[in-house]
Amino acid sequence: MSAPGAPAAIIGIGLMGGSLGLALRARAGVPEVRGFDPDAAARAEAVKLGAVDVAAGSLEEAIDGASTVFLAAPVGQLAELAKQALSLTGETCVVTDVGSAKGVVMAALDRSERRRFIGGHPVCGAERSGVGAAREDLFEGATYFLTPSDETQPALFERLHHLVTSIGAHPVAIDPEAHDSLMAMVSHVPHVLASALINQAAGTAPEGREALRSAGPSFADLTRVGGANPPLWADILLANRSAVASALESFSGHLNAARVAVERGDREWLLRFFEQAGAGRGVLLASDRELEGERPWRLSVTVPDEPGVISAIATALGHAHINIEDLGLVPGPPDGVGELRLLVAGQQAAERAAELIREVGYGVRAEPVA
Amino acid sequence: MSAPGAPAAIIGIGLMGGSLGLALRARAGVPEVRGFDPDAAARAEAVKLGAVDVAAGSLEEAIDGASTVFLAAPVGQLAELAKQALSLTGETCVVTDVGSAKGVVMAALDRSERRRFIGGHPVCGAERSGVGAAREDLFEGATYFLTPSDETQPALFERLHHLVTSIGAHPVAIDPEAHDSLMAMVSHVPHVLASALINQAAGTAPEGREALRSAGPSFADLTRVGGANPPLWADILLANRSAVASALESFSGHLNAARVAVERGDREWLLRFFEQAGAGRGVLLASDRELEGERPWRLSVTVPDEPGVISAIATALGHAHINIEDLGLVPGPPDGVGELRLLVAGQQAAERAAELIREVGYGVRAEPVA
Repeated sequence: MSAPGAPAAIIGIGLMGGSLGLALRARAGVPEVRGFDPDAAARAEAVKLGAVDVAAGSLEEAIDGASTVFLAAPVGQLAELAKQALSLTGETCVVTDVGSAKGVVMAALDRSERRRFIGGHPVCGAERSGVGAAREDLFEGATYFLTPSDETQPALFERLHHLVTSIGAHPVAIDPEAHDSLMAMVSHVPHVLASALINQAAGTAPEGREALRSAGPSFADLTRVGGANPPLWADILLANRSAVASALESFSGHLNAARVAVERGDREWLLRFFEQAGAGRGVLLASDRELEGERPWRLSVTVPDEPGVISAIATALGHAHINIEDLGLVPGPPDGVGELRLLVAGQQAAERAAELIREVGYGVRAEPVA
Repeated sequence: MSAPGAPAAIIGIGLMGGSLGLALRARAGVPEVRGFDPDAAARAEAVKLGAVDVAAGSLEEAIDGASTVFLAAPVGQLAELAKQALSLTGETCVVTDVGSAKGVVMAALDRSERRRFIGGHPVCGAERSGVGAAREDLFEGATYFLTPSDETQPALFERLHHLVTSIGAHPVAIDPEAHDSLMAMVSHVPHVLASALINQAAGTAPEGREALRSAGPSFADLTRVGGANPPLWADILLANRSAVASALESFSGHLNAARVAVERGDREWLLRFFEQAGAGRGVLLASDRELEGERPWRLSVTVPDEPGVISAIATALGHAHINIEDLGLVPGPPDGVGELRLLVAGQQAAERAAELIREVGYGVRAEPVA
């Protein structure tokens, strides 16, 4: 296993890659960050801005000896880059990405490759793109999805979880398919809606088009993301093709039902529709920070040191929206029984977490941290 | 004709009616504002807050002798109230409303009633409702749609235009059908989309539902209006039934095309889709205030003193997004030729306005105001 202080590599140095470099260097105690980007100007700027210690001349050079490889290239290139990075690195190196869809990459990897590839997706961004817009605090407070699979090596998940926490983000474990469906629903479909709204408005008669400019700020808000960065969004939709198509189809069903209700003047249906949305909104958008200031609890889980464990436990907690504040693995003898230690906020979350962990089949002890 | 200083009446004293009262009293030089609301508590509060001078005991009492009647009741009641108010007032009284759809009211009125009914729609609102939330500055800077018809009496349009300007709003003339299609597109359909997004998300598997809470602020923004005030929104959709149904159907067509493109992996189609939206967004949302600070120009239009004139001219300018800053009518002899004077901002707008006015058949002279 590499030393904890082994170098990290970043492939693709734009806004995300550059910000990762700045954050890893300043906050995570990573001794060296090596970056590679096919664009020589981006490499030079990354060095100048301190986003990387070393700009490597090739992907091979960047990842040689790295213990963690972040793929921050355009989403359409991630599957190939992941295979390449995995083939060039050893058993103790974790490869991750920052793409907003996971299915295509996971489908491209075989079971053995999946042991060391853990999908990542920081939910943050900026108005501008490119390494020049990179910021050390980009990930501060952001949700950072991690998508372990059944094959994920626990020790590699632990390392990645620590790095994500150390750069200020909140890691949330979720399985790759659930991640993609979720992103289709909360991000990819809304982007399509925003652009479709604009295209519909722009296609109407001139009088409507002109008066639209007087229609107040709500339309502007709703369509804020419409038409932003066409190549990026075309690629994101295609990288999450089946989840997006299925979310769009299901959404059309909801719309169609509403249209029928409007047409037949069904006030009761419309009332229920809006009431259900009001109730749903409350549940869905309840503050993430409800538990802030709660006392930390430690969960000690008895686990075999084998793949699948971390995926089962972390995603069970992630799906139940229990944030793992910190995570440590105390390995047992080779192939023996070890201990997974988790920190969560508050007694309620700890008790619910213990229940979920028992449900997936592991012994667990919960206690407040003194 | 009533004296310019004749009383105004407000029927329905909630947020809108109360704010109208405050603004008319403080800014418009209206000598008396009389209000009626079926809810006695709302009437008492309106008097206490100074939103009305007098709380009348009935609709009849409120509108007796008024030169302007504002109907600020729930949208489902507007058609009936309009007919009632028109039947109880004389030839020199203009009746207007503040509803967000115009078709149902216009369809309920005959040609003679349409001479004195001019639809209005201030595009503004507040988080809270009820007269307790009323504010004198609610209309400050807001677009205030006026929907004159072919039957509209010019002098009544002039009075309403002045009142709207005096309370700080920007009157924009648009014909009733174009108004309803526009509102369907920029407000009513987006409300349906927001609620449908929430209902779809809330209907997914629990893991998606919980993780959704970590999905960042963009979904929250997009669904901000979802589920707000179900009875109000059910009634608004029903009041604008045919325009909403047709906008929803057309929107489904746009969505379906996007889904097909995603399914068949048509990157070129998606690129064009997003590029078109980006271009459309720029055009649609160009700043309303581009002309601010421009020198005022006066347009003197030779017009017969008859219905149809004001609708033709004001909506031609409204559709071309030329704001009428002020408007005055110098009547000729009975059924003779008079002069309509319009103020617009800047030479460019004045020249375009003159062109449009000539196109609809009137002689016009444009000159800068000294």
